Order: sequence, then C-alpha cells, then structure tokens
Amino acid sequence: MADLHICSPKGFRASGVYAGIKSKKSPDVGMIVSDLVATAAAVFTTNKVVAAPVAVGRENVAGGKLHGIVVNAGNANACTGRQGERDARRMCRLAAGVLGCAAEEVLPSSTGIIGHLMPMEKVERGIADAGQYLGNSLEHALRFADAILTTDTKRKAAAVEVKLGRQVVTVAGVCKGSGMIGPRMALGDGVSGARGAKGAPGSMNRRGRTGRKTGGGSTGRGVTARITTAPPSRGAHATMLAYLTTDAAVPAPLLRRLMGATSDATFNAVTVDDHTSTNDTAVLLASGASGVKIVAGTPDHKKFAAAVLEVCQSLAYQIAADGEGATKVVVIDVDGAATDADARAMARAIANSPLVKCAMHGNDPNWGRIVSAAGMAGAAFDPDRATLTLQGTVVFRNGQPVPFDAEKVRGSLKAPEVRAALSCRLGKGHATCWTCDLSKDYVTINADYHT
Amino acid sequence: MADLHICSPKGFRASGVYAGIKSKKSPDVGMIVSDLVATAAAVFTTNKVVAAPVAVGRENVAGGKLHGIVVNAGNANACTGRQGERDARRMCRLAAGVLGCAAEEVLPSSTGIIGHLMPMEKVERGIADAGQYLGNSLEHALRFADAILTTDTKRKAAAVEVKLGRQVVTVAGVCKGSGMIGPRMALGDGVSGARGAKGAPGSMNRRGRTGRKTGGGSTGRGVTARITTAPPSRGAHATMLAYLTTDAAVPAPLLRRLMGATSDATFNAVTVDDHTSTNDTAVLLASGASGVKIVAGTPDHKKFAAAVLEVCQSLAYQIAADGEGATKVVVIDVDGAATDADARAMARAIANSPLVKCAMHGNDPNWGRIVSAAGMAGAAFDPDRATLTLQGTVVFRNGQPVPFDAEKVRGSLKAPEVRAALSCRLGKGHATCWTCDLSKDYVTINADYHT
Repeated sequence: MADLHICSPKGFRASGVYAGIKSKKSPDVGMIVSDLVATAAAVFTTNKVVAAPVAVGRENVAGGKLHGIVVNAGNANACTGRQGERDARRMCRLAAGVLGCAAEEVLPSSTGIIGHLMPMEKVERGIADAGQYLGNSLEHALRFADAILTTDTKRKAAAVEVKLGRQVVTVAGVCKGSGMIGPRMALGDGVSGARGAKGAPGSMNRRGRTGRKTGGGSTGRGVTARITTAPPSRGAHATMLAYLTTDAAVPAPLLRRLMGATSDATFNAVTVDDHTSTNDTAVLLASGASGVKIVAGTPDHKKFAAAVLEVCQSLAYQIAADGEGATKVVVIDVDGAATDADARAMARAIANSPLVKCAMHGNDPNWGRIVSAAGMAGAAFDPDRATLTLQGTVVFRNGQPVPFDAEKVRGSLKAPEVRAALSCRLGKGHATCWTCDLSKDYVTINADYHT
Repeated sequence: MADLHICSPKGFRASGVYAGIKSKKSPDVGMIVSDLVATAAAVFTTNKVVAAPVAVGRENVAGGKLHGIVVNAGNANACTGRQGERDARRMCRLAAGVLGCAAEEVLPSSTGIIGHLMPMEKVERGIADAGQYLGNSLEHALRFADAILTTDTKRKAAAVEVKLGRQVVTVAGVCKGSGMIGPRMALGDGVSGARGAKGAPGSMNRRGRTGRKTGGGSTGRGVTARITTAPPSRGAHATMLAYLTTDAAVPAPLLRRLMGATSDATFNAVTVDDHTSTNDTAVLLASGASGVKIVAGTPDHKKFAAAVLEVCQSLAYQIAADGEGATKVVVIDVDGAATDADARAMARAIANSPLVKCAMHGNDPNWGRIVSAAGMAGAAFDPDRATLTLQGTVVFRNGQPVPFDAEKVRGSLKAPEVRAALSCRLGKGHATCWTCDLSKDYVTINADYHT
C-alpha cells in the first residue's frame, strides 16, 4: 500500500528523462502511457492567455480517449505563436510514434519559462528517450514525478485503492505546482467544472463531501502522499499540472463530470498567489485494465468518485504545502454562507489576502484581517452573526472579539497546518480553500529570479 | 502656491494633537472644521464589516451638510459592537460641543487597531485639545496630516488653485494610507461611485480624463504634494482616509456626483495589497467661503471637477508610493479594452499579482506575468491583438515576445515610477491603476507586527 504510485493502476507505464531543457540537470521530459486506449477527461486553465499545449490538449481530449500524455518542464511553450502550436503538435506526433497510436491520442503539457520557442531538438531526443525507458515500477513513477517539477521543492503524488465488492481498483495521481498558483480550471469546452458537476457523486454538496476528512493535511487511509525532497529548479515559470490514472473502466462522459466536480473542490480551491497560469492542466486517464466497470449512479460510482476526490485533495494540499516560500499550510473553512459560491468567494478572499498570509507567517492571531477579508468578498456576510475559530479557539463571535489566551493561540499557529474556520449563520453554503503563509522567501524567489 | 494646504480654502481651520491613543508620541486626534456650514459628500468602504465611525458617518453626511470632521488614529473602532457605535456618536457630540453645532453635522473617522474599545477618556481629552488648537496656518494643516497617520512613513497632501474667470477657488486634500489598501468606496447610500457619476464632468470618460496628465507621478501645475517624512507608527491597523476642502460653493447633489466619479478614478484605483479596509472614508467639504458658486454643466463646473480629480489623483498616487515596504510606484495603464470595466478588471489583476509586484521589485521585465495577469481578469482579452509596453519599450505584441534590450529595460525599471501599458485593440475601454512593488519589508511589517 505504501508503494502505490502513478503506475499502480493496471495498464500504465511512465518515464522521466533528462533532455537538457531545464537549467539544472534533472529529468525534464516525462510520459505516462496507457497500454490500452484509455477514456480520458481533462480540465484546463481559463486564462485568456493559453499556452500552445493547452490549446492542443483541449482538442485531443475532446473525444474522450487518450493513449498517453507527454510533458516537458523548463519551457512553458506559452506566448510562442503558431510555431508554439506546431511544436506542441509535434510533441504529440513524436510520442505517438513511440506508442504506435495517433497523435490526437496524446495530450501534451509544458511548464517553464514563457515566451521562448521550444528547443525541439532536445525535446525530440527527450521523447525518444522517454519512450525507451517506459516502465511501471515505483522508480519509473518517481522519475516522471521529478520530470514535471520546476520551482517545486518536493515531489507530489498520492494514490488509493478502492474496494468495490470483491474487486479492487486503484486511483493514483502526480502533480506539480509551487508558484503562479491560482488555478481556475474548467472542462475543455469552456463548461466550468461546477456546471459540469451537477448532481454527480463527488460533487461538493454537503452530503457528498466525502473526502473532507482526508483533506487538509490528513492524508487519510490509503493515501500515500509521497513527499520527497527534490532540489528545486530555479528560473522556471510555474503552473499546476496534475495527472491521474485509474484502472477502472469509466465511460468518458462520467469521467468528464467527475473531473469537473473534483477539480472545483480540490485544485481550484488551492491558491498560493492567486495568479492563474497559462498552462494549468489536470487530466484523468482510465485504462479499464482492472476489468471493473463504473456505472453512473451506483454505489460503486460513489465510492470511486470519493477515491478520486481523496487523491486530488491530497495533491492540492501538497501544492499549498510546497507553495513558494511556504512554511505552513493555511486551511480556510467557511460554512453557513448563503450559498456555496458565497462561501468560496469568502474563503478565497481570506486565503488570498497578503495581510492574512503574513499574519499566519508571523503566528499572529490577527482575526481582524480574516473577518475583514470575508467582508470584502462581495458575498452576503453579516459580522454580527459570524464566528471565527483559529486552530480551534473562538476569537470572534457576533461582531465582537472573544477574549482568548493570545500566547496559547500564537503557539498553536506555529504548526505545519493552521486552520481558520468562519461560520456565517446565513445558510448552508460551504467551502474549503488551501493556501500557505507569505514569507520573505516568496519575495526572494520571485524578485531575485530574472527572466 | 507652494504653501497651499488643507486650510488654504477659505473658511477652514484644522488641528492635530497628541492624546496618547497611538503607541508612539505623535498627534493622534485631529479636526477639520468649516466656520460656515459646508455642503459635503463622502464615499465609504463597501466592506460588509463596517467600523462604527463609518456607520455613523454615513448617517451624518446623508443630509449633504457638515460642520466638520473628527478623526483619531491608533484605534479603528471596528468590531466593537454597540459600544463602538456609542463611542463614535460621542466623538461627534464632543466635537460638536467645541464647534457649537449639532452632533449630526460632524463626520467621525478612526484608524488603527481592530477589535478594541476606544479609550474614550483619552479621546475626550484629545477632542477638547484639538478644539482649542484649531487654526488655519500651514502648521495646523501639518499637525492634522500627522494626526491621521498609522503605518504611513510620509504625510500626504495636495492642493490646487482654480481660476474661474477672474475669481479663484482652492481645492485641497490630505490623506493617509499605507497597508490594508484596496479601497472600493461608494457613496453612503450604497450607490457606487461609478453609478453616481453618470455624465458628471470629471467622470472618467475619454474626454473627461482631465487629470490624467497630472496623475501617475507628475504632481502637475499647482499641486503641492507635501510629502514629508514622518516616523511611522507601528502596531496599527491601516486603512485609507482622505479629507478634501474647497471654498467653492457647491450644491450637495453636485458634490455627491463629483465625489463618486472622482473616487472611482483615483482612490478606488489604488491598491497595495487589495485588502479593503473596514474604515475607508473620503469626504469633501465645500465651505462656499470664496463666494464662487459652481453651477452644474457649466465650464466652471468642468474646471472645478478637474481640480478635484487632480488633487485626488495626487493623493492616491502618494498612497501607492508609501505602500507598506514599497520602493517604487507601479502604474498600470490598460487601454483598448472592450469596456472601461474590463480595463479596470485587467489593470487591477495586474496590479494585484504578487508575481508582477515581485518582478517590479527585482527590476525584472517579466512580461509573461503581466500578460497572464490580464488574461485571468475575467475580461475580454486576446493576447494575439495586445501590445505591452514596459517603461516605453515594447516587450510583447500580437501574442508573441518582441526582442528588446533586456539590460536597458532592467535599468529603466530601477526608477521611482514604473509604467506598464497594455493596449488591447478590442474597444475603447481605459483604466489606470496605481500600485507598488512587493518587497521583503512588506512581509516584515505585516508578519513581525503582532496584534
């Protein structure tokens, strides 16, 4: 169980190789392939500035089938015009050549510096190498996990096994992301995850918040959060990329709904600096190699959706934890809002406030910054009805401060995970958002680094 | 001319005294009074968490007449419940006692720490003292300017004389603001400035952008930006407060429209950390003591509106320049957007991106961060039509980077004012936003300071 990884789901192989695209010598081209053609669904950045691989990826995943993905780190292939798009398509063709499939069955991703044409000779060699070194061992999975990192200081992966009757399917994921993290991803056709999610199990209604127990730091039963220190690669433009594999057999439309709903509750609820990248991509491939079919609306569907949610929550959490300059994860819980959208707006406003993030860095129970951030979110909010809890201590209730032991709360804020819970008493809206503190290291990383 | 100040408009007196509310020994209670009853208009924070003086101020200014304002620094009187509201009303009564007017003719303001009851003994003594020391000299104006500062490192004031035929009126202003600066102020009845502004001269249509020449660093003819170094007062919660005086006679409805439009183009276009305070207030008092009447729709009205805009632009600029930890002002100009609202959304997204602000701090011509921030604003934007200019050098055009002399542009970013201009080629929408860079000092100020 402890060794579950991106190739644990049957039918997948992966690799990561060094092709010289990153400035530092570490893997920078990776592939994940499905031996059988997989059903697939993906969400992509909603930034109006869209990197070439996102444009190509949207097209290729539209049919709901993929044979694999090919990724490079070190160059984002963004703002690169028509040549950039040609290069992204060429990456697919090269990977398809290795796999013996159509170029349209490959999803490309890139992360790294913006506005530079891809070094295609290196990329070509990298993809050829990556094709040669494909395998399904933990080592292969780790090499892939390394190949997608840029300013990240840690690999990010999670996996879970799900028992469905007497059968078992596995859901696994790997991701990267540290700075330029404010994902607002939606299904490729522009339908937001939230809209695509209606009524799907795993959507974030109150009953379906299955993964909540395991999010927010607890990696939960079965989740293997492989956080291993890896040397960061400086000088790279950041983004978030996530790749999920499962050996369940899932119809593409179901996979799409699931991916939309899950992303909204996980990746789209993480923020480091609220800067939505040009390259954000999360894709889920279902190989079907376990022979276990997921049928919409069944209890198995629900269990499977919960597993996907659990893996994505762990990945999202790991992104917040490895936010540029972060010393701790800050979890913002808002409940009792008029609507879920209101709750999200308030949670996000709190999570994005530099004042709140600095206070958390300084272990300062500065509830005024948190409550005022909620009030500026444009959501229905009445401080006279609200209660704010910091690390379990009520610090504000019904419009006024509640006396508390400041030293004790300050001490409790020196934890690797800090939780602020705002209860609004206006309705049933709920949201959770993950962020990190704002340290001087964030400024060092982003001011001292030069394009 | 060089000595124009808040009491230069006829009929005003001011004072600032030390009452022991701030931790450091500097003035912390101030008053501005109009000898005649003045017409008045004010905009207030739209944060749902509203400090007591804002709630009381909204009521008192609703009739369009005021005799004066009373301010304290060191305590925001926010999240202080009913006692807070009683205290704010009491401040008005005390000031009214000094002036011999009704309590409802006084607008109260507070800035400082949130969630502490006002030290009313000190406030009472302070207001009595402030009443005693009222005067209309430069010294009085400076004392008032000091009395409203918290984490500010500089006094902020501006003034301009306007020739209307053979007569002269003066418009002057003083303000404070350094952190928790992301004003979204609207007229007291909840009508947004933008809505109140319709068709008013001074509104930000293309023709009426009269003050634009003088904004963005140039203090313009006649504007005396009295930026004098004053020691900062740490430990205080920040906000923006602005007080404007004029000796023109302006009907209250006209003043309201003017204040709404002007605030949107000036104070509401400044951001340091995009955190909207609970106490933000800007108020304009027109004493009429010059005997010069401003009639709606006349050329004089237009000139007068331009003068108010000019003063407010200078004040707004000074807030950005003195942003917590700032080493430079960053001016974001967006034009050619589909609408003004789209332009504002993009300018604000760029100005608020920690990645953009860190790049500006590091003198890094990182255009990718700027263009991608525009793309995430939710506004219509097509990078393939856009041009980005950094300090006069085109760095991005039509979706692709334009080769530029990086060392030269880097050097040009080492200026006290840096300008990024994004041209969208989609329509006629325009907006300007002022912000500052993000330095380690911002983190020091906001993480090391404890409530």
